[in-house]
Parts: sequence; structure tokens; C-alpha cells
Amino acid sequence: MTERAINFGAGPSALPDSVLEEAARGLVNFQGTGIGIAEISHRSKEFTAFVSNLESLIRTQLDVPPTHKILFTQGGGTGQFSAVVLNMLARHRLLHPNLTDEERFMDYVVTGSWSKKAAAEARRLGGGKVNIVAESSHSIPSHDSFKFSSDPALIYYCENETVDGVQFSHEPSSPASFPFHLLPQNTLLPLVADYSSSFMSRKIPRLADHAIIFAGAQKNIGPSGLTIIIVREDCLVDVDAAAKLGAVPVPITMAYKTLADSSSLYNTPSTLPMYMAGLVLERSQELGGVQYFEELNKRKADKVYSVLKEGEAKGIFHGKVKEGSGSWMNITFGVLGEGAEAKFLAGAESRGMKALKGHRSVGGIRVSLYNAITEEQTDQLVAYMREFITENAS
Amino acid sequence: MTERAINFGAGPSALPDSVLEEAARGLVNFQGTGIGIAEISHRSKEFTAFVSNLESLIRTQLDVPPTHKILFTQGGGTGQFSAVVLNMLARHRLLHPNLTDEERFMDYVVTGSWSKKAAAEARRLGGGKVNIVAESSHSIPSHDSFKFSSDPALIYYCENETVDGVQFSHEPSSPASFPFHLLPQNTLLPLVADYSSSFMSRKIPRLADHAIIFAGAQKNIGPSGLTIIIVREDCLVDVDAAAKLGAVPVPITMAYKTLADSSSLYNTPSTLPMYMAGLVLERSQELGGVQYFEELNKRKADKVYSVLKEGEAKGIFHGKVKEGSGSWMNITFGVLGEGAEAKFLAGAESRGMKALKGHRSVGGIRVSLYNAITEEQTDQLVAYMREFITENAS
Ligand SMILES: Cc1ncc(COP(=O)(O)O)c(C=O)c1O
Ligand SMILES: Cc1ncc(COP(=O)(O)O)c(C=O)c1O
Repeated sequence: MTERAINFGAGPSALPDSVLEEAARGLVNFQGTGIGIAEISHRSKEFTAFVSNLESLIRTQLDVPPTHKILFTQGGGTGQFSAVVLNMLARHRLLHPNLTDEERFMDYVVTGSWSKKAAAEARRLGGGKVNIVAESSHSIPSHDSFKFSSDPALIYYCENETVDGVQFSHEPSSPASFPFHLLPQNTLLPLVADYSSSFMSRKIPRLADHAIIFAGAQKNIGPSGLTIIIVREDCLVDVDAAAKLGAVPVPITMAYKTLADSSSLYNTPSTLPMYMAGLVLERSQELGGVQYFEELNKRKADKVYSVLKEGEAKGIFHGKVKEGSGSWMNITFGVLGEGAEAKFLAGAESRGMKALKGHRSVGGIRVSLYNAITEEQTDQLVAYMREFITENAS
Repeated sequence: MTERAINFGAGPSALPDSVLEEAARGLVNFQGTGIGIAEISHRSKEFTAFVSNLESLIRTQLDVPPTHKILFTQGGGTGQFSAVVLNMLARHRLLHPNLTDEERFMDYVVTGSWSKKAAAEARRLGGGKVNIVAESSHSIPSHDSFKFSSDPALIYYCENETVDGVQFSHEPSSPASFPFHLLPQNTLLPLVADYSSSFMSRKIPRLADHAIIFAGAQKNIGPSGLTIIIVREDCLVDVDAAAKLGAVPVPITMAYKTLADSSSLYNTPSTLPMYMAGLVLERSQELGGVQYFEELNKRKADKVYSVLKEGEAKGIFHGKVKEGSGSWMNITFGVLGEGAEAKFLAGAESRGMKALKGHRSVGGIRVSLYNAITEEQTDQLVAYMREFITENAS
């Protein structure tokens, strides 16, 4: 292999070396067909078998119940900001045809820039009223601030805010957990979660209670161009019937039922990104699945948060997120002092560590510790942070 | 390289060996960054420079005028069936806010299964009335049968019908050409063309007169997961303003203006498929651009049509498309006699020639001759077809 940098980027992001090597072979010859993976028909028996296997790798590792389908599509997380609204509004319209748009609520929990953007898209599309259930920045809002509507079309949250570094805790007892106990007592909750940047990094709490969970592949499990959707069967609704009752029309590639009815092969999917995601997930399975990554990712995050604390005590670093609400995947902080951030980044770069610059909207430093980042690579970063503290502490 | 089959598939389809080899290297290290192409940020300076280059490769080779933007997105041709309708309805709404849906026309030319599907999507989405301008199967309709509306929101055609093997001629004098001379005399024609399966295979007649030209990458220029849109600037409309006037709301990833304003980086694009399309188009440029492929593709198609004629004369093959309307890209025919098709396919397979089976909806044989199919590979097929004729003629 060529000299590789350590890529702490927030997405698209690092992939395991072994997967890249295998993918290079698959590009030329997919499963001995004599045809490369980017060239083979999505309707070939080899590819359709591959898709079922991809599905079962996810189903097994996340323990997805038979009530939920796993779908693959294109369009990214942003495509799903629209799709979840359109499908859930259609579902609500079929359940409650006579409500006006003013009476039809879409509940959004806003914990950072991605959930804010998703709420803005719901407002743009219309067909219902956006209710901000709770809002905060740099922390998960306290449970007592959540105000859910009584029978909303959807209840939306973003499990991990990639830009801000804020994540719901997956420990039910934590004050930073999602307040499942406060949800309206419907049998079939319209709960929608954006797992783009934490998918497959640890178990999903209360997965079975979700209507929709979606994620772009380009953080933990593959290249961009692939979106994964886990959707409960009651959300596979006839969007055309709903449109006849006045719901917003749904472009055909966004209709979950259409995708489900064709096993995600309604139209040509992103075959190459799917292939690479499959390789990543096969490797994960071999390593011990999501359980393995949960332990690994916790160790990695603990190490970085711990050196960050040391740096805070010495006035070198400034953590951006309240304790308990900090993400395992994206750790955000500032470096105190004029020119100090640039100095930190240059020092990292000279040690082969890249893409540590925070999102352009917030600045600072962001360390993304997705599944492909090894503990050794994390140790290298931690060593550098410690060195930086020692050198700069007065 | 491993033993490679000759892949006559209709898409995803063959890519040049040299591109696959280069892509295998890019997977590990993109342009010396130490980061692979599937792992690098779409906002990195290396990737954004790559996107501008991709754009200019297309602009140069197709001679796209400055009045038209070139956009990259996800969602495939099927995604664009919806997007063209939504954007063009929004544009028409802003121009003519007071028309009812019954007075707002969408003109569709139906020459096969893909344009039929596109028209069905326009009907699904509503907001206007679908007018079938002309319809035929197995041939391009005669010019005198076209009935355009006077001021439609869009005029839609599919330049090459991949399933049926019907293609508009690019010779203006041919009776199978698109009847540009019959179009309503608007200064800014709302002309929309699906070039999914012929993009970059030869020049685009009257390109500058089109409002939108779109194509999935997975036929002539790359893996699936990438969609290319050439859009005239007056079609970059404020879809939210149009929605306020009653137009169908447009999911944000489908709004052309949003894509254009962010140089196709509104959200994470399909970086790896874009990269491979870039490699394909760089190679095309070196070979002489679209002009080179136009000559090559004509020679390839002529050879296959010619042996097909020989087989027809001997009662072995049965061409499916009327002379003059036959596609250069997808040549469809039947093999006469019980079990003869299976025999033909098995013989091809044993000679390393794959994916010759026609689309499941129509059956028969389909030979796809996209840019990556060489003249030598075509010759091998032709030799086999000739052998098959000799062996089976009585
Ligand atoms: C949490 C989250 N949601 C949504 C998105 C948007 O995804 P995409 O860029 O694939 O549209 C991102 C992208 O980084 C994200 O991190
Ligand atoms: C002419 C044409 N249009 C549209 C499509 C649909 O494209 P996609 O499968 O990318 O949605 C195809 C697919 O083969 C096609 O050949």
C-alpha cells in the first residue's frame, strides 16, 4: 500500500485498508463473473444475492426485527430530510384525512445544525406545521423541556450531530438520553431518527419503536452515494392514495413502498458504493459486529475526551459540548490563543494526521472517530494532543 | 488483469480496463493526498478541483454553451423523471401563475418504455396535464403525427430507448430525427431530453435549444450513482416562490437552482462514481472526444446491423426496430425458432460474451454497444452471429 494519511475527516471518511484492497479486485472482477462490480447489472443474480446479503448483515448486527424493512437508495441524508416528511405526511393523511395543515404537526427535536436543516426542509415542503419539541446547542436538552404534540405525523431527532459534536446518550438512565418515556402513547410511534453519522457504531436504543431510521453510508460504512433506511411496515404507505386526499405528491424514488416492493431495485441503485458497504459490514461481522465497535469506539472517545480535559485544565483546549452530551464520533473543541488552531492543525498535518479542521460553519477542531479509525491511530492523535499541551502550557 | 468477459449489458455496463486499473489506485490514494477517493471530503480542495475538471471535460467535448450549467446529483434517470417535472412546472407557474392544472400542459413524446414511464411519473405528480405528442413503438413516429401544445411547461423526449432499441437519428434530414422545426416558436424552448443511454456517445443535436438534458452515468461514462444534468439558466427557478403560487413543492435535492448555487455540492455527492466518470472522460478527451466515439460507435453499430440483416434474410434473426429508427447503443432482435434464443445466448456465453439477454419486459436479444465496447469486441460478436447463421440456416 502507498503511504496513507490518518484521516480524521467527518465524511466521506476513512475506510479499512483491507476493504480498499478487496474493492480494487472487485472493480475488475466481481465474484468471478469476469465483470467488474461497477459494470455488472443490478438485476444479475450475483448482484441481487449481494443485496440480500447486505441486508442481512445489517439486520443481524443491529437486531432489526421482522416488522422493519431495510432499504437502499440514493440521495444522501439530505434526500431523506424530504423523504421522511413526504412519506410520514402521506401516512398521517391516510389516518386523519380531515385535518387541516394547521392541525397536522411535525415534531422536531433540534440539537444542532443537521436537525435544524431537517426541520427547515419540513417547513419548506408544507402539508403540516413544524413544532420544535425542544431545542438546544452544545448539549442535549433536558428531558423536562421536551413538548411533544399529541398525535403528530412524525417525531424527528438526529442521534448524532456531526457538525456540533452533540450526541444522545445510549444509556437510558443518562439525562442526555432520548426521552422515550415522554413520547405520546401511540402503539405505532411515528419516530424518525437521523443516524447518518453514528450508524453501525453502536447499538440503536429502542430500534423497534422507530418508524424510520436513516443514514448515509459515508461515515461508518462506505463511500457516499448510498443511503440506508430502516422502515417499519406501517410506514410503507400508498402515497398516491394520500395525494388524492391532498397530501404533498411524492417523487417515485422517494416513496418507501415503491422501494420496498422492489427490494430496493426499482431503479438502478449505487452498485459500487453498495458493494463497498458490504465489504465493510462483512469485516465488521467477522470482528464481532456492532458490539465490537461499541467497545472500541467507547475506548477511543474516552481517550480523546480525557486528553481534552487535561488541555482544558491547562488553558490550552476548550471543549465545545457539555459533559454527557459529547459525541463518540465527532469530538469538537477550540484551541485557545491567537493562531493556536492553525498551529495545532499544522502540527497534526506534519505527523500525517489530516482533516481535523472543524466544519466551516463553526470552526475549531473536529476529531471524527468513525469505525475505521483504529485505536492505534487514536493513540497517535492523543499523544500529539498531549505533546501540544506540554509545549504550549505556560 | 484477471480474465475478463465481454460485457454487452445495457447498464451498468462495461468500463475501459485502463480506467478500472487507475480507479483501483485512486481508491487507496487520491492524487497523492494519502487518502482514497472514497474517503476524501467532498469539500477538500482536491475534490472540488476534480469536480470543476469533470464539468469542463463535459463542456468541452459536448460544446455546452455558457447559457447552460452542468450539474451532478444522485438518484438516476428515474429521479430525474420527477425532477424535470417539478422544476419545469415551477418555472411555468412563475411565468403563468393563473392557469389551472387543466390548462397547464406537459408534452411527452413516447417512443418506448422509458419515455412512457417518464410520462406516467408526470401524471402521478399532478400540477398539469400530460399531453402525448406522438406515440409509437419499434420506430420513431413520423413527423406529421407530432401534436405539440402551444405553450407547454415541458416538451419531453427520450433520445435513446434502451429497452426497445429505438433512437432518434442525429441527422436532421432523417425522417427519424427529432422534429425541431415543428416545435412551438418560443424563444426559450422548454425542451427536456433523457440522454441516459446515449450521453457522450455522439454529438447532441441542437443542444443549445434544450432546457434540460439529463443522463445517468452508468451506460457510457461510469458507475451508477451519478446523474448528470445540463440545464439552461432560465430553468434555475425559485421553486419556493412557485410553491407559494400553488406549484407542487420540490424536495430540496431535486431543486436545480439549489444544486447550481452550490456547484453541485449542496450535500455530499457520489464521490467515487464521479471520480470514475472523470477518468472515463479524460480518456475520451485523449482519444479525440465525442467525435471519436461518434465514428467508432457508427462503425460498431453498422457491423451488427449488417450481420443482423444477413440473419434476417436467412430466417435466423428478426430485427425488432424499423430501419432508420434503430439505436446505435442497444440493438434488439429475436432469434427465430423454438429454443433458438437460449441456444444463441449459451453459445455467446461459451465464447466469453455476456449480458446479451433482452430486457425482461420484452425478451429477445439486446446488444449494447456503449463507448467502452471496442471494435474488436464487436467483431467477435459479429463473427459469432455469422457462425450462428451458417450453422442454423437450412
Ligand atoms: C447527521 C447528518 N445528517 C444528514 C447529513 C446530510 O447527508 P448528505 O450529505 O448525505 O445529504 C449529514 C452529512 O454530513 C449528517 O452528518
Ligand atoms: C433511457 C433511460 N432513462 C431512464 C433510465 C432510468 O435510470 P435509473 O435506473 O438510473 O433510474 C434508464 C435506465 O436504464 C434508461 O435507460
